[in-house]
Amino acid sequence: MSLDVLLEKICEKQNPTVAGLDPKLEYVPDYIKEKAFAKHGETLKGAAKAILEFNKGLIDALYEIVPAIKPQAAYYEMYGHHGVKTLYKTQEYAKSRGMYVITDGKRNDIGSTMEAYAAGHLGKVTVGGEEYEPFCADALTVNGYLGSDGIDPLIKICEQYDKGIFVLAKTSNPSSGELQDKLIDGMPIYEYMGNMCEKWGEKLPGKYGYSGVGAVVGATYPKQIAKLREKLPHTFFLIPGYGAQGASAEDISAAFDKRGLGGIVNSSRGIMCAYKKEGCDERDFAGAAFREAARMKKEIMSIIGNITLS
Amino acid sequence: MSLDVLLEKICEKQNPTVAGLDPKLEYVPDYIKEKAFAKHGETLKGAAKAILEFNKGLIDALYEIVPAIKPQAAYYEMYGHHGVKTLYKTQEYAKSRGMYVITDGKRNDIGSTMEAYAAGHLGKVTVGGEEYEPFCADALTVNGYLGSDGIDPLIKICEQYDKGIFVLAKTSNPSSGELQDKLIDGMPIYEYMGNMCEKWGEKLPGKYGYSGVGAVVGATYPKQIAKLREKLPHTFFLIPGYGAQGASAEDISAAFDKRGLGGIVNSSRGIMCAYKKEGCDERDFAGAAFREAARMKKEIMSIIGNITLS
Repeated sequence: MSLDVLLEKICEKQNPTVAGLDPKLEYVPDYIKEKAFAKHGETLKGAAKAILEFNKGLIDALYEIVPAIKPQAAYYEMYGHHGVKTLYKTQEYAKSRGMYVITDGKRNDIGSTMEAYAAGHLGKVTVGGEEYEPFCADALTVNGYLGSDGIDPLIKICEQYDKGIFVLAKTSNPSSGELQDKLIDGMPIYEYMGNMCEKWGEKLPGKYGYSGVGAVVGATYPKQIAKLREKLPHTFFLIPGYGAQGASAEDISAAFDKRGLGGIVNSSRGIMCAYKKEGCDERDFAGAAFREAARMKKEIMSIIGNITLS
Repeated sequence: MSLDVLLEKICEKQNPTVAGLDPKLEYVPDYIKEKAFAKHGETLKGAAKAILEFNKGLIDALYEIVPAIKPQAAYYEMYGHHGVKTLYKTQEYAKSRGMYVITDGKRNDIGSTMEAYAAGHLGKVTVGGEEYEPFCADALTVNGYLGSDGIDPLIKICEQYDKGIFVLAKTSNPSSGELQDKLIDGMPIYEYMGNMCEKWGEKLPGKYGYSGVGAVVGATYPKQIAKLREKLPHTFFLIPGYGAQGASAEDISAAFDKRGLGGIVNSSRGIMCAYKKEGCDERDFAGAAFREAARMKKEIMSIIGNITLS
């Protein structure tokens, strides 16, 4: 009913970071692409198979030190249903390695349509007399623009299957303020959305003080992180924008409470393309990803110190 | 670069309605499900195949009088990658029958991630030396909470491939006001979002006065429709909430200008489940869908009168 499992994995690994798996085809080492294309052609299926191999290599390299992955749905959908199959296979593989899976889909709709997204991404779906898990994420990012009609169906599925959601509050992009910083009765919209997360989260209380309704808060806005941490004591943060988008470990320090809990920091390109930045052999892409993940863990933990659940 | 093609099809059919294909498995006639399950089992694949057959039957019944379909992504994703394949096959089939395809995905993200959604759903994707259309929609619904960083990549793809988008402004659900009705400097957020549509739309001007950036405005809020039509002269409306959600033809009359242009009205369950409401043989589901679509056309056209492009 909450994000407890994620918090436990973060504590176990002493690492509040998540590897974003946003696999542009240009990130995939040539030798993997060549093998996939030889078998499946230069096709959407070939691309999807190459990405799956890349992801599996990254997961194998990371699962011992990184608690979670965050695949970004867009990079899978762009290869059609073949890509969506790779999204599922990636989730399944990460789960088999004990990782927590956050699907970054920013889904949003209402009523029975939101139920369909919730059942598909976080729950189970019945066909005739059989039950299936079409995807197998532990949490899903969602957009709250439609209000409670869009969130309530998710809450129900989270209760039923012990899952969580992250609602967009203050996103990491430069233009996020166009709407999110506008004031409603003197309160910025991102804070208003954060308050709704606190309210929605009451239905999904967690053992460690954080509910099953988290918020997405960009690392690129350190002041807003500090303000939201103060005002939203039960809302866990998913923090994009670290590294490639320019934010540092100090920028995100205010997200964490005295126990070192409070948020999980995403790095996508930094980890996936570490082999390019290092300039090592592309066949060592997984080793380079591990080294970058270890460096990032060390950098962030140097700010946090230690993580405990109590 | 715009929604011109949609407007032309609306005028040609003298019918400003779109058939929402939100195929819950319970909507699919038993004989279609039995056939699909016999071949593929009571599986996600079996469900996806049954839905595709149902959709094809609906499209065959509707294409001569209805200009467009609007498949809702959630009802396909809930059957995993098999369902997503059915989404593609449904789009492809509707296009082969000359229908305009609006994918209701409410996608939202930023920068290169939004580029991935845009290329996947509206544009083309390159693999090695080959180009593919992973999906083949003419327009996509999107959520503008992230600001211009989320819309600009779509505009680029719309320019390149002559496609359009619909941005959520005032959604049809009861709780849409929780955020959308809140005031920014005295202006409701849905109107602020509508103004952004006008601004974004300047980059995608259309021949008939309406740009390539439309807005989603719920039929359940007739006063807001009237206000937005007055304030947003270049923004075409996608109007959900008619029929099943309680709105009538009069509720949506203010969406239309003197030419009878200005919006397209969605009906999903009303059309898909017409055979259940009629109580006819389930094998006549397509006939019942046609009769309901014809009834809806007549009802709405009785308010509008006639549609001309000039």
